[in-house]
Amino acid sequence: MAQSVLRQSIRSINPLRGNLRPVLPIIARSFGTSTFKMSEFKQADHKLLVIPGPIEFSDPVLLANATPGTAHTSPAFIPVFGESLKLLRKVLLSTEESGSQPILLAGSGTLGWDAVGVNLVERGDEVVVLNTGYFGDSFAECLEIYGAKVNQVKAEVGNIPTDEAIISALSSKPKIITITHVDTSTGVLSPAAHIASLVKKHSPDTLIVLDAVCSVASEEIKFDEWGLDVVISATQKGLGVPPGLSVVLASKRAVEVSENRKTPQQGYYISWKKWIPIMKNYEAGKPSYFATPPVQLIYALNTSLKSIVSKPISERVEAHKAASKYIKDELSAIGLDFVPKSRDIAANGMTAVRFPKGLQAPDVLPKLAERDIVVAAGLHKAIVTEYFRIGHMGVTAVDRQRGDLEKVIKGIKEVLGKN
Amino acid sequence: MAQSVLRQSIRSINPLRGNLRPVLPIIARSFGTSTFKMSEFKQADHKLLVIPGPIEFSDPVLLANATPGTAHTSPAFIPVFGESLKLLRKVLLSTEESGSQPILLAGSGTLGWDAVGVNLVERGDEVVVLNTGYFGDSFAECLEIYGAKVNQVKAEVGNIPTDEAIISALSSKPKIITITHVDTSTGVLSPAAHIASLVKKHSPDTLIVLDAVCSVASEEIKFDEWGLDVVISATQKGLGVPPGLSVVLASKRAVEVSENRKTPQQGYYISWKKWIPIMKNYEAGKPSYFATPPVQLIYALNTSLKSIVSKPISERVEAHKAASKYIKDELSAIGLDFVPKSRDIAANGMTAVRFPKGLQAPDVLPKLAERDIVVAAGLHKAIVTEYFRIGHMGVTAVDRQRGDLEKVIKGIKEVLGKN
Repeated sequence: MAQSVLRQSIRSINPLRGNLRPVLPIIARSFGTSTFKMSEFKQADHKLLVIPGPIEFSDPVLLANATPGTAHTSPAFIPVFGESLKLLRKVLLSTEESGSQPILLAGSGTLGWDAVGVNLVERGDEVVVLNTGYFGDSFAECLEIYGAKVNQVKAEVGNIPTDEAIISALSSKPKIITITHVDTSTGVLSPAAHIASLVKKHSPDTLIVLDAVCSVASEEIKFDEWGLDVVISATQKGLGVPPGLSVVLASKRAVEVSENRKTPQQGYYISWKKWIPIMKNYEAGKPSYFATPPVQLIYALNTSLKSIVSKPISERVEAHKAASKYIKDELSAIGLDFVPKSRDIAANGMTAVRFPKGLQAPDVLPKLAERDIVVAAGLHKAIVTEYFRIGHMGVTAVDRQRGDLEKVIKGIKEVLGKN
Repeated sequence: MAQSVLRQSIRSINPLRGNLRPVLPIIARSFGTSTFKMSEFKQADHKLLVIPGPIEFSDPVLLANATPGTAHTSPAFIPVFGESLKLLRKVLLSTEESGSQPILLAGSGTLGWDAVGVNLVERGDEVVVLNTGYFGDSFAECLEIYGAKVNQVKAEVGNIPTDEAIISALSSKPKIITITHVDTSTGVLSPAAHIASLVKKHSPDTLIVLDAVCSVASEEIKFDEWGLDVVISATQKGLGVPPGLSVVLASKRAVEVSENRKTPQQGYYISWKKWIPIMKNYEAGKPSYFATPPVQLIYALNTSLKSIVSKPISERVEAHKAASKYIKDELSAIGLDFVPKSRDIAANGMTAVRFPKGLQAPDVLPKLAERDIVVAAGLHKAIVTEYFRIGHMGVTAVDRQRGDLEKVIKGIKEVLGKN
């Protein structure tokens, strides 16, 4: 062991290339301390994780998740948290001047639904939920718990609601409309910019909530330009960070609606009234406490966000489009069909692909796992046995030198006897 | 660098001793994969973190937090999650036969308060909150949001409520009574066993909720024997795992109360109705999904729990008592006083100690930080400038060879000119 460690150590490498596979030792910054330290970290060998989240994580991100015990109010941590909030705005193409408010909390993406219910919904409020799959059903169920009168505009499986149906739903001037940007149960990508423009035209006071759990940092999102009010997400997908962080960006207008509500917030832990002053303090570099933030996950997020913004976001979106095109073209070429009705409403960070006739998940997924490739089974009840899901977000899409995409296609071809 | 890595590698060491400082390379199991891999991990140099949480983490725990991307439904992860649930019961001296239900969620300790509000409180329910500091106030505020009629039984700062006051509050047979086991704002340890016995005698149907955020795995808790109904906690204190996990154990009786409520659960993400089937599936080794669990934190928790249960829990509690006695005796010897009125109601995992007359946090804490020792300032508003707080939980208390406690005392003596 000692000899191999020595050999590895000698092959020094640029830290920015830590995503490369095979991954060589990197010079890692010692977070949580005022000094820098040489450290060596290479994540354990493992099966290639290509599901629609969690995804593959880079070594620097995982190393940041192993940051030593650090106080949530320490001078080392405060600027890291503050910078992460600023970088999140940058990834979503929003500006501080717009008054948008990033909120990072321990929780899963699902907690973002409750954040909408707790902070924006008052009993009896009308909410339109555009439903493109499982996650629309669940978001609707969540908001109803908080007293929303939900009007679901459902598309058939693999499709999106029509403009006519959306415009009709807007005629009652609902308080909120929700869009599942990418429904991971169907792989359908909703045209968020277009839908936002419909809302601006037909019901401009309606708050636009984008469930972007499976789209932040993998699909195009222009928060300010599109006039979005809430983006909710999580870390384990396009952001490339282990799960455990609820990610929210709220517009000035949404924050004002939450502040001016007539009834109290319907929860404590996810009350923006509690958290926004804390987030503002972190961003201003001041210590502050409401509940303990997940310090290590914030370090990991900070590491990933810095890598993401090191290039224009548009380049990252293009890289995901190219990855998606490669996967879908290759699957098409061997005769496979997709769940989304057409390419222009198919996600770029994942692919929901139908099994060849006669095959189901137990025929395919274990054989892929034998080849160290982990994809996901179906999720949407109506078609659950008929398809599987491939994730291609983060390093898998952006760092093509890893060869993840080629490995997946090769594996699928072998298992289906198409090579 | 290569040479030093080589030297370190040659000094091989038993993985169980990974907590030792200086920390030597360890042979780490590669989680999330079917193979084992030699890996080397040593956390970065950093200031000694001795606040009442987050605490110092062991190298194996941090390495587990850097587990590669792993699916939340994978055959690698399911048994790790399932075992963690079982081990949590063991740490709290509960049995599967009792029907107690462990619940692990992405969130902070505070989310546990909401879990009580969402699942157990119905509008108009009477709840008695025993208040020994800041966290009693906040727990009461949280439960009121969910419609509880809260009767706070307050003790003066540094003290606990009298038996008479508790018995009087129980006379109306409240649905729930809450106890802050250790209020980290005062360092007061509530006599949970004794209070539970009062409840059993005077209002046996009252559910007993123990806020054990700062006591699980550092103070004695006998879930089954004391007849507790809910223990809520977090990972970054006695459990020795980075923050980001809400830890709950609910009795069979508490689960039944949540199931038999007349009104729906008042939240979605923390609804036990949603999560309990998932937890049961994980414990039974079956894949299951409601929201994505924080996979890496569960690996880290699993690593810490296995280390904790490798010895009897009583030994761990005794180690914390011994650490506490050492710190308090040393501070007493240099003439310092404590916030808790007497030693028998002082926490064993932390110490709230008053500054010498004329000194405040800015006179002391920065000088300790210069010596690489991070303690916490005061938190309770009534006395906030008068005291500071030292944490001595987890490896700092249990692994005395680290010398953490001696370093803290030496630093304090130097800064106060008492050496």
